[in-house]
Amino acid sequence: MPTVEDVLERAIELVEPSEEEKKKLSETASALLEVCRRKFSNIEGFVEASVEGSAAKDTWLRSKPEIDVFIHFSPTTSREAIEKVIIELGAEAVQEMGGRSRLRYAEHPYVEGFIDNITVNIVGCYEVPAGKWISAVDRTPHHTRYVVSKLTPRLKREVRLLKGFLTGTETYGAEIRVGGFSGYLSELLIIHSGGFLELLKAASGWRPPVVLDIEGRLARREALALFTNSPLIVVDPVDKNRNVASAVTLTKLSEFILASKIFLENPSISFFTGGFMHKPHSLESLAEDRELFAVMFRIDEYVPPDVIWGELRRSAAGIKKRLELAGFNVYNYGIDERDGSIVLVFELDKINLPSRFVHRGPPVWMRDAIRFVEKHLSSPDTVAGPWVEGERLCVLKKREVISVDVLLKKWISQGEVSISKQLNEAFISSKMVAGWREVINMLGSGIHASFLARFLSSRPAFMEEFGRKKQA
Amino acid sequence: MPTVEDVLERAIELVEPSEEEKKKLSETASALLEVCRRKFSNIEGFVEASVEGSAAKDTWLRSKPEIDVFIHFSPTTSREAIEKVIIELGAEAVQEMGGRSRLRYAEHPYVEGFIDNITVNIVGCYEVPAGKWISAVDRTPHHTRYVVSKLTPRLKREVRLLKGFLTGTETYGAEIRVGGFSGYLSELLIIHSGGFLELLKAASGWRPPVVLDIEGRLARREALALFTNSPLIVVDPVDKNRNVASAVTLTKLSEFILASKIFLENPSISFFTGGFMHKPHSLESLAEDRELFAVMFRIDEYVPPDVIWGELRRSAAGIKKRLELAGFNVYNYGIDERDGSIVLVFELDKINLPSRFVHRGPPVWMRDAIRFVEKHLSSPDTVAGPWVEGERLCVLKKREVISVDVLLKKWISQGEVSISKQLNEAFISSKMVAGWREVINMLGSGIHASFLARFLSSRPAFMEEFGRKKQA
Repeated sequence: MPTVEDVLERAIELVEPSEEEKKKLSETASALLEVCRRKFSNIEGFVEASVEGSAAKDTWLRSKPEIDVFIHFSPTTSREAIEKVIIELGAEAVQEMGGRSRLRYAEHPYVEGFIDNITVNIVGCYEVPAGKWISAVDRTPHHTRYVVSKLTPRLKREVRLLKGFLTGTETYGAEIRVGGFSGYLSELLIIHSGGFLELLKAASGWRPPVVLDIEGRLARREALALFTNSPLIVVDPVDKNRNVASAVTLTKLSEFILASKIFLENPSISFFTGGFMHKPHSLESLAEDRELFAVMFRIDEYVPPDVIWGELRRSAAGIKKRLELAGFNVYNYGIDERDGSIVLVFELDKINLPSRFVHRGPPVWMRDAIRFVEKHLSSPDTVAGPWVEGERLCVLKKREVISVDVLLKKWISQGEVSISKQLNEAFISSKMVAGWREVINMLGSGIHASFLARFLSSRPAFMEEFGRKKQA
Repeated sequence: MPTVEDVLERAIELVEPSEEEKKKLSETASALLEVCRRKFSNIEGFVEASVEGSAAKDTWLRSKPEIDVFIHFSPTTSREAIEKVIIELGAEAVQEMGGRSRLRYAEHPYVEGFIDNITVNIVGCYEVPAGKWISAVDRTPHHTRYVVSKLTPRLKREVRLLKGFLTGTETYGAEIRVGGFSGYLSELLIIHSGGFLELLKAASGWRPPVVLDIEGRLARREALALFTNSPLIVVDPVDKNRNVASAVTLTKLSEFILASKIFLENPSISFFTGGFMHKPHSLESLAEDRELFAVMFRIDEYVPPDVIWGELRRSAAGIKKRLELAGFNVYNYGIDERDGSIVLVFELDKINLPSRFVHRGPPVWMRDAIRFVEKHLSSPDTVAGPWVEGERLCVLKKREVISVDVLLKKWISQGEVSISKQLNEAFISSKMVAGWREVINMLGSGIHASFLARFLSSRPAFMEEFGRKKQA
């Protein structure tokens, strides 16, 4: 088994950009900043342009260069005016740099571009003092200043190791799809703990809810009262009313805690290389005899991912709830989205409900007890009874529809499933299949195949490695 | 549809003994009483002999003549001495009358005999004033006196109608097997309500717990406090601390309430003729596709029925509980006993557990979380995972044994099922079969066939009739 030192030495090579890469990023950032300053200089309300994010903080990952240019406006400028010029001049700036661009939406529209394999974002913000925030991105320049003031060259390397570790363990990213750790959060965690290994050691002792407050702005009790239901609370050093880790779900935090524990006991480069190791298993042998059910449909590709993923997660939870209400047991489920094609896969205890069920009627002393007897005696789907159990009438009924796909389609059409309104039509006209062979037929080849394999194994790469070592 | 009057007219013929029968019973009773008096007259402690029960009260059912002779002893006589002479001289008395006899056990041994197709019981009791009871049967002569003082010829006929109705609806009998209404209880109900139809009308408005107190000895509140958990409380006129209806289960009381309601709306002679009407259905068509499971074994025939039935009911409830703990859903179950052959039949939602299940492990922050991961990674019955859900580890496992018969046998052997100790060995070596075809193969012909048909229909005769009428 390699030592932690061996592994970190290899990991540093994976996460630390080469000198050449660094030079290219730095030159591109300077050039883009200059173009932007020139383009926006005559615009009303323009204050300045700045490089923010990982490029400014020198914490970006090797092979993942990204430049965020923020265009600062005075607080009196209207949102509409800012949006308009960002869209227009941002695209022009990227074009002038020889790149291509597209419009993206977060809280506000921004321009995303690709220049020489570097991702660039051109974002409009208000130039305001701390605490006087107007739009959601106004804190960013303050974040950059704070982090830059704290990071030494060693700590920058430690941030990169952490980002590499989070990426490899699939816990990196504050988007709803992931529910994990943002770049800024990673930097604060390193600043707080003083290093990568120090953080992992601390994390392996964490029990949610976890409260971290670098600047000591809030008492633990205050933080818990302010950020209820957050499993991880990291008080923003530039705004004590904000939890930097608000996007982190309990599951992702727990995965990070577990990964930390396993890494410290069994260090391996797989925590940084990530991805799932596909065992030589075929999908068939993985899926055989399992009670699988899948839903597939297409969505408009231009809806922002955070919107779609929020709706998909809510809808999947609503489906799980409805299935369990009907007597299905949902073991696990997964969601995949590729190029506008959506897939939900559920693993159940069974894909068919029992063909008979006991219908419990009123107590015999109720006025309508005799009507219950009458109704079920003359009903063709009565199998046995009515009989009396305790004070209640019972009757054994035949269930006509038992297959999960047909039942769910029916329930959704009847508005009995709590799924997002925007997706209702898509679900009604979706393709639903039940049975492991049917699910493999639909998803086993093509763009969702790798998702299906990962869902069926439900085990991250670093765990596979751990299992192998332990067996060896 | 016949009127209530039509039906009662026919029913009276079914329940009222012929003059000839009455004469024969009366003569046999007198003769037996005389023989007993002679035989016991020289025995130390003997006080007198008397005829009790339905013969003394003239409330016995046509074709069901029964004579109870009570031998009264002074309170100073020892129980052992009474038991000894009852066993010895009781048998002699029956023999002298040309009958055959056998020993039976209730609280104490007594002699049961058959003389000329009349059942006779010879029972020893203490001659004591009300309230000074020594043995459980000492109240009986007081009951007889009370009932005789209250019953007019009309009320005797009404008692017989009620007993016929209870027999036909399978609610007659205080033995544990039935959990229904005793003869004395039937008489008190008629005395209380003033007639058969009056009782049915009252009963169709009952909501348990029901408190009846003919002599007004207890406030309702007192009665409920004294006889907690009794769905029907009928205060004994000769002993206010005794509930005459203590044997009546909630299910039997509810069946009586329901039968009363249906009879008043749809009077039919089937309420008195009873039994199940077997529809032209074959057992196969009744059982088809149902998830049945049966247990069969033999017991010692000489154990008193109330003991056996108590143990069988407790054991069946224990099995139901264990099956539901494991994830089976028990729809209904039935018990049959014939000539020492015992059968339990269960109807379930499934006879096999799912072949996969989610095993939920510790939260990731627990010290042993990593050991859980390690253990399940290297275990051959792990199908998928471990994965993290919320703060907990989960893993999908393969279940090796899934069939209810094999599982239950294993659980009983391991002492995991709450079944009565006396039956433990019998259950371990019992025959267990799962599947509707297998159950029909085992029980579909032979002594348990009619029980199986009744279990599969789970519907009393009077309901079948009701169903047919409503459809017609």
